[in-house]
Parts: sequence; C-alpha cells; structure tokens
Amino acid sequence: MKKIIKNLKFVMEPASIAIVGASATTNKIGNVLVRNFVDGKFKGKLYPINPKYKEILGLKCYPALSAVPGKVECVVIATPAKTVPSIMKECVKKKVGGVIIITSGFEEIGRHDLAKEIRQLAEKNDIPIIGPNCLGIFNPSSKMDTIFLPMYKLGRPGAGNIAFVTQSGAVGSTVTDLAAHYGVGMSKFVSYGNATVIDESDVLEYLTEDEETEIIVLYIEGVADGRRFYETIKKANKKKPVLVLKGGKGKGGQAAAMSHTGNIAGSYLAYQAAFKQAKVTEAEGLHELFEFVKIFNQPKPKGNRVAIVTNGGGVGILTTDGVEKETNLLLAEFSEATKKKISSFMPAYGNIGNPLDLVADSGVDAYSKALDILMNAPEVDILVIVTLLQTPPMDERIIHVLTKASADRRKPIATISIGGAYTEAYRKILESNGVPNYGSPLGAIKAISKLVTYADYYKHLKKTSE
Amino acid sequence: MKKIIKNLKFVMEPASIAIVGASATTNKIGNVLVRNFVDGKFKGKLYPINPKYKEILGLKCYPALSAVPGKVECVVIATPAKTVPSIMKECVKKKVGGVIIITSGFEEIGRHDLAKEIRQLAEKNDIPIIGPNCLGIFNPSSKMDTIFLPMYKLGRPGAGNIAFVTQSGAVGSTVTDLAAHYGVGMSKFVSYGNATVIDESDVLEYLTEDEETEIIVLYIEGVADGRRFYETIKKANKKKPVLVLKGGKGKGGQAAAMSHTGNIAGSYLAYQAAFKQAKVTEAEGLHELFEFVKIFNQPKPKGNRVAIVTNGGGVGILTTDGVEKETNLLLAEFSEATKKKISSFMPAYGNIGNPLDLVADSGVDAYSKALDILMNAPEVDILVIVTLLQTPPMDERIIHVLTKASADRRKPIATISIGGAYTEAYRKILESNGVPNYGSPLGAIKAISKLVTYADYYKHLKKTSE
Repeated sequence: MKKIIKNLKFVMEPASIAIVGASATTNKIGNVLVRNFVDGKFKGKLYPINPKYKEILGLKCYPALSAVPGKVECVVIATPAKTVPSIMKECVKKKVGGVIIITSGFEEIGRHDLAKEIRQLAEKNDIPIIGPNCLGIFNPSSKMDTIFLPMYKLGRPGAGNIAFVTQSGAVGSTVTDLAAHYGVGMSKFVSYGNATVIDESDVLEYLTEDEETEIIVLYIEGVADGRRFYETIKKANKKKPVLVLKGGKGKGGQAAAMSHTGNIAGSYLAYQAAFKQAKVTEAEGLHELFEFVKIFNQPKPKGNRVAIVTNGGGVGILTTDGVEKETNLLLAEFSEATKKKISSFMPAYGNIGNPLDLVADSGVDAYSKALDILMNAPEVDILVIVTLLQTPPMDERIIHVLTKASADRRKPIATISIGGAYTEAYRKILESNGVPNYGSPLGAIKAISKLVTYADYYKHLKKTSE
Repeated sequence: MKKIIKNLKFVMEPASIAIVGASATTNKIGNVLVRNFVDGKFKGKLYPINPKYKEILGLKCYPALSAVPGKVECVVIATPAKTVPSIMKECVKKKVGGVIIITSGFEEIGRHDLAKEIRQLAEKNDIPIIGPNCLGIFNPSSKMDTIFLPMYKLGRPGAGNIAFVTQSGAVGSTVTDLAAHYGVGMSKFVSYGNATVIDESDVLEYLTEDEETEIIVLYIEGVADGRRFYETIKKANKKKPVLVLKGGKGKGGQAAAMSHTGNIAGSYLAYQAAFKQAKVTEAEGLHELFEFVKIFNQPKPKGNRVAIVTNGGGVGILTTDGVEKETNLLLAEFSEATKKKISSFMPAYGNIGNPLDLVADSGVDAYSKALDILMNAPEVDILVIVTLLQTPPMDERIIHVLTKASADRRKPIATISIGGAYTEAYRKILESNGVPNYGSPLGAIKAISKLVTYADYYKHLKKTSE
C-alpha cells in the first residue's frame, strides 16, 4: 500500500529550486528549463546543477546538489533515466521538499525497476515526486515553470482561477498555449506523467483546497486507484466545478496510453459512469474541453431560458438550432413588456422575437439597448450574443458593451463571432476581458448546456446541505 | 408555374456592371459596394448610378441606368425596397443580362406584393434575379464582388475550386472570411437571400456544370420546391461532392427562418432523409462545415485504414479515440516490413505502433522518414499527422515535409496542430499550401470519416456506370 504524501506545497510554490541536468546548449531541455525560469522572472532562488559548467545563463552553476548552500525546496531532474535513482538519494540527503522528474524512460517503456526504486525512496522519506515523464508544474503567480517548451513557441497564461491537471504533457501544453493566446488565466498547471508517486487524486485534493483555484480541468488516461479517484473527483466537484477529458477510450487508444505513461487506461464505460455519478462535466474532445472552460468562469444561471441576440439572421438561426438541440435548455419567451421596450429602438423591418435579429444595419447602440433590456428581463436566464464584426455599422465600442454585460455578473453571457483576421483580433480582446467568445454557435450552446447542468447540481447541493 | 431562367452567366461573370444606389458616403452600403469593385480591381466596366453625384470614388456617376452608354450585363440594386420595381422596369428597357438585388424588405417582412412584381418582370423578360435580401455574388477570378462588407473587415479568398452557396448572407460572409484567413480558395460565392426568382436549385445546376468548381458547399434554410431540390442536389453530388448545412431545424429556428428570408424551413427530418438518400455530406454546424470543406480538397482515399503519426502522446491517443469512434474508419495495422523500416530511425525508448509516437524529442527528419514510409505502405489508406509545433526540436522545415506529403496526392492527409500565436501562424501557412490543418483531433477525424463515405459512394457510382 502506497503511503499518501500530502504536502505538495514545495512542488507547487517552492521558494528555491535546483535544476539537475541544467545545460548551456541552446534548445536542450536542460537549457530551456533554466531559461524559462530566468525569462519568466521566477521569484525564488534558482540553482543550476551540472559538473560540466561554472555558469549557465549568467547564473552560478553547482557541480552537485550537495554543493548548494542552504535549503533547496524543490529539485527538477532532467538527466537520463538511469541516473535518476542516485539523484533521488542526493535529494534525500539534502532533505528537499519535493521533486519533479521531467525525464522519460520509466514505466512507459517497461522500466518498472527504476520506477520502484524512486517510489520507495520517496515514500520512505516523505518526498512528493511529480512525474517522471512529464512537463511538471507551472504556477503563474510565483513564476514556477518547468514546462520545457520555449516561451516563443508556447505562450504562458497569466494568473487566473483555472487549474489544469494533465497526465499528458502534449495535451497540457496545447491547452496552456490556447489559454495564453486567448488571455484565459490559470492558477496552477500540473503535468504529472507516469504518476509514480503523486497521482491525479493527490493533485485534485490539493486543488480542492487551493484558494486560487475556482475551476479544475483534468485530462486523464489511466488511473491506478479508481475508487479513490471517484471519491476525490466527486468531493472536488461539490466545492468547485471539475471538467474532465478522458483519453484512451477504445482498444487502440488504450494500447497507446500504456506505452505513453505506462498506465492502464481501463474500460471507458466505467469512467463514463463514474463521471456521470460524480456529476463532473465531461468533454468529448480537446477542443470542446477548452470551449467548456471559458463559460465556467461566468456566473451560474438561475434557470435555463436562453435569449439570443444577433446581427446576422442565419447565424442567429443556427444558434437557435443549437438551443433546441440541447434538451436542458429553453428559448426564452419575451414578455409583452420586454417586446415593447425592444420595439422602441428596432427598425420597422426588424422582427421582435427570440432570436432577436437586430439585422446587419444595426450598430453598437442597438446592442447596448438590447442587452440592457434582456439583462433586466425576468424571463431570461442566459444571454447568447452573436456579434458579426464584419458589418459596416459595427465598431470597436462593441467591446465595451460586451465587457460591461459580462462584468454585470447577474446572468451568464456567451458571445459568438466568426471570421478571419479582423474578427480574430476582436475575439482575443473579448476573451482577455473575460468575455467568453466562440467561433461556432453549436460550441457555445453546448458549453452553456453544461454550465446549466452544473448550476442545477450545485443549487441542489446547497439546498440539501441547508 | 414559375419559368425557369437558366442563364446565370451575366450575374456570375458579367463584363459590365451598374450599381444603382451607389453612394459617396463612406460605410454606406452603396459606397462599400463601389469601393469593393474599385479596390478589388474588377476586370470589367463599372457604372455607379445615382442622380445626386457626378462622381464616386473617381468614377463617373450616371443619373440613371438609361444614361449609361452601351451594354450593361449586370445591375446591382441597393436602393430601398419600394423603389426596386421601377428600377427593374428600367433594367428591362436597358435589356440587362441579370440583376442582383441587395436590398431587404420583401417576403421576409410580408411584402409579397413587391416580390411578386419583380418576379413577374423577371420571368416575362427572362432576366435572372439574385436576391433580394442578399450579399449577391463574389467571383474571385473576375473580381465580381457585391459583398457589401468592407475588405478590411472581411477578407476575400483567392481563386480556387470551392463554390459556396448560401441563403444567409451572414453565414456566407463568415465562411468566406474564414476561407480567406486560411488561404482556402473559392470558385464562386452566391448569397441568394429570398430566392424570389433564382433559387438554390438554379444555382446548383449552374455550379454542377461550372468547370472552375470541384466542391459545392451549401447553406439552406427553406426550399420552395423540395422535389426539384432533391433531384438537383443528387445529380450535382454524383459529379462533385456537395456539402450541406441546414439552418432552422426546430420550431424556434423555423420561425426565425421565416422572418429571415421569408421561406418555410420545413421539417428537418424530411431534409435529413433527402440528404441521406442523395448521399450528400451533411454538416451539423458551421464550424464542422468548414472542417469538412478543407479535407474534401484532398484525393479520395482508396480504403478506410488510417495511420496516425504524432510527437505528442496524449494528442495521438485522442486522435486514435476519434478513429475508433467513427464506425467507417479503421486503425491501420502496420506490416512487419513497415515496422522494420520505422525501427531504423526510432529512438530505443519509442514504441512502434499506430498511433506512431515519434515522441517530443523528434524533429523534422523523423517526420520526413515516417511519412515517406507510410505513403508507400500498402496497408495505409489515409495519413493523420499530429505536429505539435511547440517542441524544441521542431522547426520550420516541417512545412516543407507536410506540403510535400499533401502534394503527393496518392493518399489523403490531414494534419493536426493545436496552440496559440506561434502555432496559429504555422497553421495558416500550411492551409495556404493546401495542407488541411485542424485544431482538434475529433474535428479532423470526423472530416476524414465523411471523405471516406463520399469516396465509397463515388467508387460505387463509377463501378455501376461502367
């Protein structure tokens, strides 16, 4: 029985870090690691370790861990697999608080002997290990960053409230890059690889209590202790929403997962049932996962009645089709009072209905008025706002109008804008202002449907706990 | 019974155009229209018409259509609805070859009287009308462009082989903008709005015979003559693939469609059955439609066996999950000969399987070798190549390797790259080189599944016609 090592503080937010396998050769992993701490302006102390160098990137380089003066809270290991057990022994001697093993070549290629050796050292000495075969940790507030991908190739998100936990480094890095691109903030990024010592449940427990984290996003392939995982994810999801993507669903995917992180992916049906039972939000794919993340930052809706506003008839219709497809959503029916208010500013040839088609001639003022009315309409719980930015009367003030509606926080909003370079620029500004923006009507609506489901569950929880 | 007007040449590729309602006021539709012809370098003659001006954007402006010297092949009308019948009468007098009515305010707001008047004039005098209530025509090779959205807001694609036909201007413009952004070429763009005279079937018939068009993409809401539509779309799809998206599926969407282009959206089940029967490819949403378009430019696969190559384990697994989810696809089983060839360049810790995980340490050379082997492997029909561009060893030469694989045209390929600004730049270059690139594994695989279905149908057609 594995001993549970709970104290993840020293891997999540260490005040001092040693990088074993630091390199002076550009684009080697051991070099990118040091560079990212330097360029990222890590707030703690940094010690490159390598007997070959006196200095790396302007920092004094130490021949061994034992040569570092004073305490080392976290050690990052990026040397070949066969050297890792002896480095772990040095970590024990140095009484470090935690270890992150980037190196691959353990369980995933059948080297269970090496894995066992480091696990025993960790458990005996109560040292948490993240990895091996992982990207490790990124903590935007402390600038802890062991993602060994160059910053010019992979953006780093700013500080925010979303924690991302991933068994796969590749999946983790792409989502992180997307988050950075669209200005979506993160609290912690944890790529845990083979889960030799610290596994997904340990990380989930930490994040459930982490005050910086309000949404937990999880990518898993295989979980060793299914029962504990179920209990942990269920408990976490009661406190804050957990979004999950499972990789390795079929036979071929499961075989690939085995040679990826050495974990048994297991029956997908069992996972699916567990997610359903625990009421966590499951995404079908990577794109969808990111679409869900964006909307969960909005306030929880009080009901399921959706109002759609558009300046493009066809896109409004496709959005309506989306609402009618999701069985837990309703198209709001506007009251006579609401219709009367809207008619005061609508052109004669416009139709007042839901979707509310402001038509292509309408500019920012029409949106401002419509959103104001719908934000106050008691028959509307959720606002979906299609803004096609290509029309001549639309101008940049729409950013202010949509940001204001999002900041209002009485009702969740989602915006939809589809197009090329011009639209893409606007989309990024909106996202970085905290306004969820979607490039597809169905994507937006499915995300909303998931938010409504979670809001219902949360409301029910509150009621039964009162 | 409506008379079928077949000659669409004068609206699709006119040598001379008059714009009635041309304006000198920036950002008015009548101004944007003229500007787009000027900036787009229209190859024919251009006559702005408006009694208020002597000149618009450096062009001589005429007081009326009758004042234009010589022949006018196409008239674009952008004046208020109530003026349109009398302008149509002028068109009859001038013996124009075709008319595009941009103006809205006809069937969609109940003005069937106005619609009837222009329809009778068109039918009596054999003048095709596109619209009203539409964006009209964009023809990248002749630079015919009545899309009244400014070029700086909405990109125009270059010449290519994809025709896009849309009942909704908004849907049409967003797809056009996306195509321009990713360098996907178009043959014709037709936004036909209310379909008062020329409808989707007329346009489909034209495009079926159009030599520049190899793929037809269609967005419809409601079709007046369902039987003819079914026969036309079926016939078109036998010659070249037709991809279709239906808007207005539920009650709310149908009501919205009625007030959008004045057409009855009709039972979605009937449409769905017709699409299935005609073997046309139906997309569920707008995003998916664009994902499908990209892969249909690839050669038709000879079978359904997919090989996956990746440098990110997790993304490879998610791609495998996608293949296993689509019932008409198979994961290729690599032969011993293929495995042997691959093992010659794989690192010792890499596993040779499908997905073929080249691991994050691999660079462009490993991809080049792997693709060469798989392009020649008889057990592989389709290649899906995950290239995460963020890894340190990956460099820009990957563009050459992927472009070469796509240009080979023995087997269809799809590439998958997910990430932020750096990745997005690469994705755009790949797309403009004709390499389909996807930001989502499931999106890529679903598109491939549709291509396989169409290729099967096409193969069957050829066999039965021999």
